[in-house]
Amino acid sequence: MTYPSFHPPVRTLMGPGPSDINPRVLAAMSRPIIGHLDPAFVGMMDQMKVLLQYAFQTENELTLPVSAPGSAGMETCFANLVEPGDEVVVCINGVFGMRMKENVIRCGGTPIVVEEEWGQPVDPQKLENTLAAHPDARLVAFVHAETSTGVCSDVKTLSQVAHARNCLVIVDTVTGLGGSEVRVDDWGVDAIYSGTQKCLSCTPGLSPVSFSPRAVERIRNRKHPVQSWFLDLNLIMGYWGSGNAKRAYHHTAPINALYALHECLVLLREEGLEEAWARHRHHHEALKAGLEAMGLSLLVDEPHRLPQLNAVKVPEGVDEAAVRTQLLERYGLEIGAGLGPLAGKIWRIGLMGFGCNQRNVLLCLHALEAVLTEMNAPIERGHAIRAAQRVYGETGHRDEV
Amino acid sequence: MTYPSFHPPVRTLMGPGPSDINPRVLAAMSRPIIGHLDPAFVGMMDQMKVLLQYAFQTENELTLPVSAPGSAGMETCFANLVEPGDEVVVCINGVFGMRMKENVIRCGGTPIVVEEEWGQPVDPQKLENTLAAHPDARLVAFVHAETSTGVCSDVKTLSQVAHARNCLVIVDTVTGLGGSEVRVDDWGVDAIYSGTQKCLSCTPGLSPVSFSPRAVERIRNRKHPVQSWFLDLNLIMGYWGSGNAKRAYHHTAPINALYALHECLVLLREEGLEEAWARHRHHHEALKAGLEAMGLSLLVDEPHRLPQLNAVKVPEGVDEAAVRTQLLERYGLEIGAGLGPLAGKIWRIGLMGFGCNQRNVLLCLHALEAVLTEMNAPIERGHAIRAAQRVYGETGHRDEV
Repeated sequence: MTYPSFHPPVRTLMGPGPSDINPRVLAAMSRPIIGHLDPAFVGMMDQMKVLLQYAFQTENELTLPVSAPGSAGMETCFANLVEPGDEVVVCINGVFGMRMKENVIRCGGTPIVVEEEWGQPVDPQKLENTLAAHPDARLVAFVHAETSTGVCSDVKTLSQVAHARNCLVIVDTVTGLGGSEVRVDDWGVDAIYSGTQKCLSCTPGLSPVSFSPRAVERIRNRKHPVQSWFLDLNLIMGYWGSGNAKRAYHHTAPINALYALHECLVLLREEGLEEAWARHRHHHEALKAGLEAMGLSLLVDEPHRLPQLNAVKVPEGVDEAAVRTQLLERYGLEIGAGLGPLAGKIWRIGLMGFGCNQRNVLLCLHALEAVLTEMNAPIERGHAIRAAQRVYGETGHRDEV
Repeated sequence: MTYPSFHPPVRTLMGPGPSDINPRVLAAMSRPIIGHLDPAFVGMMDQMKVLLQYAFQTENELTLPVSAPGSAGMETCFANLVEPGDEVVVCINGVFGMRMKENVIRCGGTPIVVEEEWGQPVDPQKLENTLAAHPDARLVAFVHAETSTGVCSDVKTLSQVAHARNCLVIVDTVTGLGGSEVRVDDWGVDAIYSGTQKCLSCTPGLSPVSFSPRAVERIRNRKHPVQSWFLDLNLIMGYWGSGNAKRAYHHTAPINALYALHECLVLLREEGLEEAWARHRHHHEALKAGLEAMGLSLLVDEPHRLPQLNAVKVPEGVDEAAVRTQLLERYGLEIGAGLGPLAGKIWRIGLMGFGCNQRNVLLCLHALEAVLTEMNAPIERGHAIRAAQRVYGETGHRDEV
């Protein structure tokens, strides 16, 4: 048996992430490796921190990419902030809230759940009621941008409710960062994690995180050691510390992936954060117009929709998996399935980062209409592309990509 | 302030890892991304498993790359196999044994330490004595290839001692895999972890691991849940499971890094495992001849030396950090410093994977002699390169790289 090199097929990624990667980023990733303690690498890391602070809109000193995927970023927040016996209020309105609860349990904490229907944002009043009933709670955790449903919760209001009850706030913005408004300092978030393979359009495997001075103080004054050596921020701070201090070896950083993330952040800075948010909003409007012209509807109510992740209801009687297979095989187009109670009921169409552009919107509408037509699905035909074109025409927005 | 793209300087990496990456691997890493549940990606993963089984010389079904660096591979082994209250015998003869002990503590286990001088292999008799004194121990952990000293311990004998006392065995071969003999099944190892940035010459950020059926059984029958959600093998097995089963989403795999690892393993298979081990041995002989001709000596006694990591004693009165700075600045050559009690006393010169070749051996001897000469260090001059050439001439080995 021989083992040839692997050559991936050409795809267009419009699922819930990973998203397509800009060729500039692929080029950066394939530059020759240097040591993780090399002065040139350390200089790059210092810049990375400033660029991440920009992306998160924060001045938090402890802002860095965890050397593992988003779920490790989540675990970094919980393992460092939860102590055994702590009461932690977790708001659940999708898969990732459930995972937060699991993290609390594994860290020895006691989760107190605020439950919300999937597809609905977290209700600040419910959080307030729960906190009133649990005065010993020390932490509140919720998802800003739920990747499983495409719903956006109001981080600023939820954080205010939590702070009024003396709780620190942990926020999941894996799908949020770079795609829609994130303002860590203005919103008063204490710990936040993201992923690189969503709206930053980087390779998966890194998790940008940021911690407020209050969170750092709590981590420094823990009664019990952090249960994970690999994710212990007290140790990691020694490596990703301030620019002039000596870098203490903790683990070998994923060097090429960090080249890639640096380039993604340079691209984000070149475009401008608010411009990137506006671009996501714009192409979402075009996609939505096309989908609605086809007679399809979105799961999430208008004011709470994430532009970068569109949960589309599967029409009655349609085999959603067969549609995805057709899209992949005939158009090289990947869209996502529903998870948990939404499995079989929705598709998740991502418009993330580099993949958020006219070309992808038009391909998706064209391919979806063609496949659904062939399956005799109950849709309106012949209007979707025109509806999207009207959005593009009306605004006169020039697609940069 | 502007943020330009990062262009790393050209280096030759002869430290303790990362090592230089083959251009074929850099090219693989920069191929366009596809989804982590794409059928083409799943097919690549199935092949990856077979290739990793070859590299580890094992038929263990549970053989996969953890989506994070070697220290996370270590933590995967301990977090899954140690239960609160377990007695775990840890053999310490360098930095990574110390880190193992720390892992045991953080998992709620009780470490029982077998201590050895740094630079010495673990003594099977000491292990036997310790196990005799602690009949309740359930696990024995030690390092095969100590990256901090370059010493190799006898895994097969140590494993036999452990098994005779009913203990499972956890082995660190971060620096071993691909560079010198590793035979997981023949040696009777129950859990083993490696890194990708050493003798596999891949990008850092992945940790190949393998678990025996006995280890899997113990993991499946744990009394307490694994404290890490991200590293819980009971969950990860659902994604990296058998080829035909449906892949359950756990976390987003680091896709491009996995392209790279696949290509490294294809290269290893093309060369042949035993041929790769022989190549490391061969260039080590040449480097050693040159170093000794310069009057330098190695820390580790002959029979226990790792060819891929050469710990060289710093001559009396030489500022070792200044030497490394000169090598880096004038020759673009990175070698490693000593750690812990060996800081300032040794250099660590790696001959790892793609970086283990004639060109690097000759550059290193030339540059080191030039820098030491300029510093008036007490060395023999003018013989090092000739000594290495004699090794190459005598064997007639043709350098493939």
